[in-house]
Amino acid sequence: MSQAAQGDALDLRVVALGGGHGLSASLAALRHVVKDLTAVVTVADNGGSSGRLRREFGVLPPGDLRQALSALCGDDDWGRTWARVLQHRFASDGEMDNHAVGNLLIVTLWQLLGDHVGALDWVGRLLGAQGRVLPMAVTPLDIVAQVRGADPADRDALTTVRGQVQVASTDGQVTEVHLEPADPPACVEAIAAIHDADWVVLGPGSWFTSVIPHLLLPELRRALVGSTARKVVTLNLEPQAGETDGFSPETHLEVLAEHAPDLRLDVVLADQGSVVDHDQLEAVARSLGARLVVADLAVGDGTPRHDPVKLADAYAGFLGQA
Amino acid sequence: MSQAAQGDALDLRVVALGGGHGLSASLAALRHVVKDLTAVVTVADNGGSSGRLRREFGVLPPGDLRQALSALCGDDDWGRTWARVLQHRFASDGEMDNHAVGNLLIVTLWQLLGDHVGALDWVGRLLGAQGRVLPMAVTPLDIVAQVRGADPADRDALTTVRGQVQVASTDGQVTEVHLEPADPPACVEAIAAIHDADWVVLGPGSWFTSVIPHLLLPELRRALVGSTARKVVTLNLEPQAGETDGFSPETHLEVLAEHAPDLRLDVVLADQGSVVDHDQLEAVARSLGARLVVADLAVGDGTPRHDPVKLADAYAGFLGQA
Repeated sequence: MSQAAQGDALDLRVVALGGGHGLSASLAALRHVVKDLTAVVTVADNGGSSGRLRREFGVLPPGDLRQALSALCGDDDWGRTWARVLQHRFASDGEMDNHAVGNLLIVTLWQLLGDHVGALDWVGRLLGAQGRVLPMAVTPLDIVAQVRGADPADRDALTTVRGQVQVASTDGQVTEVHLEPADPPACVEAIAAIHDADWVVLGPGSWFTSVIPHLLLPELRRALVGSTARKVVTLNLEPQAGETDGFSPETHLEVLAEHAPDLRLDVVLADQGSVVDHDQLEAVARSLGARLVVADLAVGDGTPRHDPVKLADAYAGFLGQA
Repeated sequence: MSQAAQGDALDLRVVALGGGHGLSASLAALRHVVKDLTAVVTVADNGGSSGRLRREFGVLPPGDLRQALSALCGDDDWGRTWARVLQHRFASDGEMDNHAVGNLLIVTLWQLLGDHVGALDWVGRLLGAQGRVLPMAVTPLDIVAQVRGADPADRDALTTVRGQVQVASTDGQVTEVHLEPADPPACVEAIAAIHDADWVVLGPGSWFTSVIPHLLLPELRRALVGSTARKVVTLNLEPQAGETDGFSPETHLEVLAEHAPDLRLDVVLADQGSVVDHDQLEAVARSLGARLVVADLAVGDGTPRHDPVKLADAYAGFLGQA
């Protein structure tokens, strides 16, 4: 029986960085492995329900926060029902179409309480969440990318692409990303959590738009580099159409390192099916200070999704090691 | 010290009928007076946030249900905070403007659970509600009124006015209201609550659009007439511009009786400041089977609102009598 299934959680403080589905997979695994779990979430989304609320009210995009909270919901009828409520999307021909209810609830609590973190803690209590969810910054951010090949007239030209949705779906090859504003105030509770953590987990997730953004916020990068926490990067199962088309696992590591040259890693975790050149990946990991851990992590139905139980077993295998 | 303030609630089952602010006042009072409280709420609203959701999704208008639930919220930080969330209205130049968050939450639970009553019970549990809130019917209704004086060309002509908002704000004099559809299925839990009740409380509230509609639904009127529960009608503090302009307290009683000739009453409760002709009001009450109770019920700031504590004291004075 797996350690995750046994339910004896490790007495460790873990901070998971990311956004979207990748972070949800990470949290779904880690919630069973460690006792103290904090998610630090990107706030650069400009699409869908989040993008509309951001434009209408000038608030942080709530969607990635909502998804992370739902992934941590209490494992009972109460927690699961309220998570379903939060994740519910209206479908109609009218003005509510595609709005996620949890996004509206989070924005409401922000407006009522005037306190980003306090409001998210209220939603966490509603869900009986087994962990805390924090935004990486308390002002809305935009991701801006340099992209090669997006200009049909000149395939070698660099184009500036602005906005998380636009970067994630570009036709070209992302070569560099930065944030606008470039040095926004980080969430102080997120900085404190990283400072106090035993482990920090980056990834999996949309590489340029959910994982790397944390390294672009100077205050957050300094906290990561300066923290005594050990760091694990969990690689994606396959490249993502658009932003990381054609990237090998080692390319993912390399672009991450290019965006944070002073960040040292301790573990690189990769799915066995995603590794093409084991030696080369190990060499790149070692150049960043990390040992490579390869395990079976995929759901196994052919879709590029991490299986939370397999991922939990992999984390349980090394997080507790001194 | 008042009985309400002493907190020794009467071991009685009470059903309060109504909608809007009037029902909220009724519930705010009764929650302190009796142990078992059920609200049965009109579902004919066609304006504001409720009207938009009704048109967009074909659902029951949730607003009066939301307001009743909020009036019953738990008397602690948890209950009060979630009631504030439910009552929060977005304000913007965009598509969310004026939507009440609790309306969206109720519609979500209806869509997820496919069960009107079960969904409202979930919201009640969220709020720690001290009582249950039920819709009077499980299909959206429309109020249709015959109005005299709304046609500027012929002040004696009868006009048909359709819709709760339109009836409540008519320029003319409402002479009769009915429901469309005329005989919709009532909420079975509401029928059962009336059957089992010790007391049924009608009013205060918008007379033609929140109080009388319960008497227009045949199944509900039969339950009221057939129930052994004693019935109290709580009169409004003053006529309402539009729907009951110029109505005396006794006219309120008379039009109620015209819409439900077979309904016998036990108590008519009136504010002392609203009574103009005590003998005449008492005579009309007696003709319906009721004794008249006159008390100080108004907040006392000149606005026509019931003070929940004074109203609670008045109810405590007669509900417990054999």
